[in-house]
Amino acid sequence: MYEINETHDPELKSWVESANDPNTDFPIQNLPFCVFAPQNEQHRAGVIIGDLVADLEFFAQEVLEGSAVPYFLFDAEKAVDLSDVRIDRLMALRYELYKIFKEDVDPKVQDFIALGMHKRDDVVFGSPYRIGDYTDFYCSIYHATNVGSMFRPDNPLMPNYKYIPIGYHGRASSIVVSGTDIKRPWGQNRSDAEKPPVYIPAKNLDYEMELGFFVGRGNELGQPIPISEAEVHIFGLCLVNDWSARDIQAWEYQPLGPFLSKSFATTISPYVVTMEALAPFRVPAFERDPDDPQPLEYLNDETNQKFGGLDIKLEVYIQTENMRQENIEAHMLSRSNPKDLYWTLGQMLTHHASNGCNLQTGDLMASGTVSGKEKDERGCLLELTWRGTEPLELPSGEQRRFLEDGDEIILKGYCEREGFRRIGFGECRGRIVPADS
Amino acid sequence: MYEINETHDPELKSWVESANDPNTDFPIQNLPFCVFAPQNEQHRAGVIIGDLVADLEFFAQEVLEGSAVPYFLFDAEKAVDLSDVRIDRLMALRYELYKIFKEDVDPKVQDFIALGMHKRDDVVFGSPYRIGDYTDFYCSIYHATNVGSMFRPDNPLMPNYKYIPIGYHGRASSIVVSGTDIKRPWGQNRSDAEKPPVYIPAKNLDYEMELGFFVGRGNELGQPIPISEAEVHIFGLCLVNDWSARDIQAWEYQPLGPFLSKSFATTISPYVVTMEALAPFRVPAFERDPDDPQPLEYLNDETNQKFGGLDIKLEVYIQTENMRQENIEAHMLSRSNPKDLYWTLGQMLTHHASNGCNLQTGDLMASGTVSGKEKDERGCLLELTWRGTEPLELPSGEQRRFLEDGDEIILKGYCEREGFRRIGFGECRGRIVPADS
Repeated sequence: MYEINETHDPELKSWVESANDPNTDFPIQNLPFCVFAPQNEQHRAGVIIGDLVADLEFFAQEVLEGSAVPYFLFDAEKAVDLSDVRIDRLMALRYELYKIFKEDVDPKVQDFIALGMHKRDDVVFGSPYRIGDYTDFYCSIYHATNVGSMFRPDNPLMPNYKYIPIGYHGRASSIVVSGTDIKRPWGQNRSDAEKPPVYIPAKNLDYEMELGFFVGRGNELGQPIPISEAEVHIFGLCLVNDWSARDIQAWEYQPLGPFLSKSFATTISPYVVTMEALAPFRVPAFERDPDDPQPLEYLNDETNQKFGGLDIKLEVYIQTENMRQENIEAHMLSRSNPKDLYWTLGQMLTHHASNGCNLQTGDLMASGTVSGKEKDERGCLLELTWRGTEPLELPSGEQRRFLEDGDEIILKGYCEREGFRRIGFGECRGRIVPADS
Repeated sequence: MYEINETHDPELKSWVESANDPNTDFPIQNLPFCVFAPQNEQHRAGVIIGDLVADLEFFAQEVLEGSAVPYFLFDAEKAVDLSDVRIDRLMALRYELYKIFKEDVDPKVQDFIALGMHKRDDVVFGSPYRIGDYTDFYCSIYHATNVGSMFRPDNPLMPNYKYIPIGYHGRASSIVVSGTDIKRPWGQNRSDAEKPPVYIPAKNLDYEMELGFFVGRGNELGQPIPISEAEVHIFGLCLVNDWSARDIQAWEYQPLGPFLSKSFATTISPYVVTMEALAPFRVPAFERDPDDPQPLEYLNDETNQKFGGLDIKLEVYIQTENMRQENIEAHMLSRSNPKDLYWTLGQMLTHHASNGCNLQTGDLMASGTVSGKEKDERGCLLELTWRGTEPLELPSGEQRRFLEDGDEIILKGYCEREGFRRIGFGECRGRIVPADS
């Protein structure tokens, strides 16, 4: 799982020219999966290379069976999305594609293969999985401490935090793909504690920069997943924007947690970057303070400690309506990195199944806001503006406490390491549109 | 929706003899929907009458098209479960079945129809819907006050309680049908605050008596549902046992709410009792204390106030392993009634969609523990034994603070009203089996 193999060779080039651009997120070393629809056609599974997307239905039927590469069991007609395909088959398919896209492939074969490729800009992306259940964790200790100190100054970090990868069930139905507009939600607001609450459009609308991961292999109800096997169940990663209405949240969240403050929309990036592609970017799990407790045995594993972390550069940008009109580029709000998460993805997944809860292919889990130690590493406006008390200055001269209508938030993620090709996640975009009146 | 019509006529009898038993839950006035599988066959949609279940595939293909009743659009081949059929078609189908099952039907037709009927005891029931998202509310003010006073004696009822139908997202994947064994989950327990937590089988295992309702018609993302239209979206009701591990819950629930303490299993009864069948049992919404605030406008509607309540007698029984061996009948633990819920089902649904969250056909919502004012109306052991401090005495001479291995919990529900036939929900059963070692 963590091994470096031939597919990570940084010298490797593709006959798809755009994949060889040193700045692309999608060199041949990446090959993330997706679901897409060419114009006016049905959705189908695909794989990204450079600025193209390969139609897996075409590949399974036309390329893989008849070509020099071995026939591969991918039931393309059934594969409306990735939920319909077993994780081992997807991984084997990825390896076949790697061979097909290498630069030394016979140009005649290239010409034929090109028939099953589309320009990324010409297609529409859908959710890569039918997401059954969505779980959102809270695994950045910096985020948890910051938010805790705003809401509970005496008791910022709960006593359970260093023992439990804290998480809660999210809303699956309202997960949308990058590019979908986000309508400002209505909700109960009680910012004036002396008066009754009012039902109004949310005032303190926020984003959260998160890392998401898809379950590729489930477990039976009643059968926990040992920490040593956790990553076998993870297929790949995406970017997640867990839009949050802070005014709704503050009033509704006790005692059962966030509900409508989050469930109006969650945006995901459409490309699933596989765990295999990420192998060169694995780092040790978060180094705990010597005074901190060690994880309980069911969450503790040597391999997980050594390789459970992920070094991914995450960036958040904003572009307001004014900035668009004045052609001012999107402005970076923060950078952070999941290597700073207190818990690893494997620990989140193992904890989730530790009571026997059955995970299913296509379930989405997210890390919670990824914030770092520093001020410019804070992954949401709540933290960056300290609950709105320290507004941000934008290059357009505007100020922001929270999101205004017309603001677009763009999440980016990419991995860089000396001796390896850069790989990336593409973008996760969403623009706030006004509430219904 | 609330009108009494010919299908509620208490004098009406069926040629299915068992449906005329005055104690049956399933007279011709009920006709709940379900999904079932005859021995070794595939699951399909069905309707219950007396001790029989009607195969809707057979009815759609053989009975409804060719008989005197009008042809009906029910695509039986596609209908793996009720999610595949529109709510208006299910309701029209129910009306056709009502006419077919009336006692005045030609005996020759009866003989033919009987070919599409199975004994309820001979089939296996599945989940009536593919449940996309599951939401659990907290709408009994008696339950909320009791639980609150145990955990937060100074502040039992949060200030938001009388304004918001408090709810949280639950886990959909681990919802199981009545009769499924419930394995005692493992989890983190920190009953001794002086020591680190331990990962052990849950000690304080509990049930929660809840009422569930299925969304039969969804809404688009970003489009709230007015309170006046809420019930149009509800197809029918079932019983829900929201199994809860109280020791896991107490340690994990802050600040994001219950997670693994609930997600190991939730049991539902397999029959969906339609809103139409329940029309005679509608009562006014909960009468608020004169000092209590009125619901905010988006949750306030005259019809909802007049008819939004439901008069359903809910009962909880326990049968321990010892009781079974000694042939001691199941022992009633409590009776309660959703007419005592602080919020109506319509208010729960409208609140859920009030931020634009898209509900989908097959979503399950549950009321939260249905408790009443009185001690014997408390819908879970946490309340009945006051967190284990007042153990219950069982007829076998045993005591219970929380559930032991081998205990079976049986939920029942039925409606009775002078001048109407009794209708019922059947049972929602689950037996605790030991944790894995």
